[in-house]
Amino acid sequence: MKRVFFALLAFSLTLAFSAPALAGERDALPSWNAGASKQSISDFVARVTTEGSADFVPPAERIAVFDNDGTLWAEQPFYAQFFFAVDRVQALAPQHPEWKTREPFASLLKGDMKAALAGGEHAILEIVMATHAGMSTEAFEQLVKDWITTARHPVTKRPYTEMVYQPMLEVLAYLRESGFKTYIVSGGGIEFMRPWAEAVYGVPPEQVIGSSIKTKFEMVDGKPVLMRLPELSFLDDKGDKPVGINLHIGRRPIAAFGNSDGDLQMLQWTTAGSGPGFALYVHHDDAGREWAYDHPSAVGQLDKGLVEAAAKGWTVVSMKNDWKLIYPVTKQ
Amino acid sequence: MKRVFFALLAFSLTLAFSAPALAGERDALPSWNAGASKQSISDFVARVTTEGSADFVPPAERIAVFDNDGTLWAEQPFYAQFFFAVDRVQALAPQHPEWKTREPFASLLKGDMKAALAGGEHAILEIVMATHAGMSTEAFEQLVKDWITTARHPVTKRPYTEMVYQPMLEVLAYLRESGFKTYIVSGGGIEFMRPWAEAVYGVPPEQVIGSSIKTKFEMVDGKPVLMRLPELSFLDDKGDKPVGINLHIGRRPIAAFGNSDGDLQMLQWTTAGSGPGFALYVHHDDAGREWAYDHPSAVGQLDKGLVEAAAKGWTVVSMKNDWKLIYPVTKQ
Repeated sequence: MKRVFFALLAFSLTLAFSAPALAGERDALPSWNAGASKQSISDFVARVTTEGSADFVPPAERIAVFDNDGTLWAEQPFYAQFFFAVDRVQALAPQHPEWKTREPFASLLKGDMKAALAGGEHAILEIVMATHAGMSTEAFEQLVKDWITTARHPVTKRPYTEMVYQPMLEVLAYLRESGFKTYIVSGGGIEFMRPWAEAVYGVPPEQVIGSSIKTKFEMVDGKPVLMRLPELSFLDDKGDKPVGINLHIGRRPIAAFGNSDGDLQMLQWTTAGSGPGFALYVHHDDAGREWAYDHPSAVGQLDKGLVEAAAKGWTVVSMKNDWKLIYPVTKQ
Repeated sequence: MKRVFFALLAFSLTLAFSAPALAGERDALPSWNAGASKQSISDFVARVTTEGSADFVPPAERIAVFDNDGTLWAEQPFYAQFFFAVDRVQALAPQHPEWKTREPFASLLKGDMKAALAGGEHAILEIVMATHAGMSTEAFEQLVKDWITTARHPVTKRPYTEMVYQPMLEVLAYLRESGFKTYIVSGGGIEFMRPWAEAVYGVPPEQVIGSSIKTKFEMVDGKPVLMRLPELSFLDDKGDKPVGINLHIGRRPIAAFGNSDGDLQMLQWTTAGSGPGFALYVHHDDAGREWAYDHPSAVGQLDKGLVEAAAKGWTVVSMKNDWKLIYPVTKQ
């Protein structure tokens, strides 16, 4: 019995490892127009998955990292997590009468985002701490779950989870079929993404890396809880993206996907290994179907990254020309 | 072709998921004496892997966490990582003439560990920072790899990697065969364990959680590096073990293995979920084959943990009575 099992398993694994070829037969990236961008992805996958090839990479080392905001889902007119915080401010306002006269809350409550954000990073941090801390990790998870299923994007009125990029969902799935482990490495909150990342992207909680606030172990009525403290622990952006990758994964990725200068160091780190490395920028140039922006931009600025991508021959995806569609087709 | 593949894969998976039963046939824990401790492990595995059982846990949620020092390998007369640091102090001494008269280095260089450690935590931190920082992550990894293959334990003169506990290696393998993902959650340095944890324990880098110092992304001669800074980032002990688990895994484990009061919060956290939870303490009571200690002890103190284990019915392993052997049998 055992012998039969192992023989079948070995046979299935042999087939499984030739899956990339099968994937090639059926077009693993149907929402991508034929062209250099699409070709660069499938060429890279073929190179690292073909046994005997000089660039073959064993499955355990096939790590791919994806930025989230602007790379896997839309980030305009502002990050989704910010709108979550705004909704929390509205919900908590009755318990905070002082917010009526205190910035940035006063402007937020009046619906004046621009004035609220005039305080820059400090204002954002104040809003985040007031809305993301002071509760257990379990309570926060529930808040996020409730919000993500009900909230609507201010412009499109679609659920945020339907503003993910269909072509990128296909890249995620294609890489996983090809033996890759896919990680999210985002400036967004790690505990803001985990509650829905598996259902939406197929990325389990342990493969989500993000910014975090401190948490503290406490016993409450004899039950252990992790309380969320109003103190930043890690800001997963720029040079700290490789830091987060090293801390959580402990291996250098071989493929990295981003859309902004905040992802540049992650792409540099990924392509600086001794073996093959792939770097891709999503360029937002589709004002008709999404947004067109690179620099200067308050959100997702892409300036230095474009220069380096050109110099190093990284893939730069034109959303307008390379993608047949932006968002998944949904029955509504 | 594809249809055949999926049929075979489905059949193999069906067999794979009945692997625990097969494991039961052949005794997955041969170095364990029959008794309550061994039984508690196999009973728990059967409960969570039997489909239809009220306690069935889907494979993705079968997370098991293991302390390292004193749980997977020996920690007496002092932590292995400390001896690594001592060896680094010896190697670096020629570049640091000031150490001859500066504590704790002066005592260390004279071989007087007790005097060196008289400075307590502060002294240990000084030694760690002087020996673990000021280089790239890649350079540190190489130092650890070189050391772990050549260093010998001061008492047994065995390589440290041969002072791992054979019965615990069997638990790790048994859980993995049963669909578990096994993690190390240690007060030891995350980058001290990763270079050898996969070869020794079968635990890949991304499943190692530990203490860390800060790292900083830098460009050196056009090549990105992560430099190790002499600043503590995270001390993965006591209440911060659940914090580290939450940060890295984002799911509550269902099984936890420790040996000291430093693991108590991890065991509490693991068993406080809504589903089944298993907690096990390794009790060092074998002065003949290993060491006998619980409390008071400078290393691996186990006091409160014993009280709570008794109250909650956790498994407490007697190394003397439950284990047929301590270390793996090696050809030497």
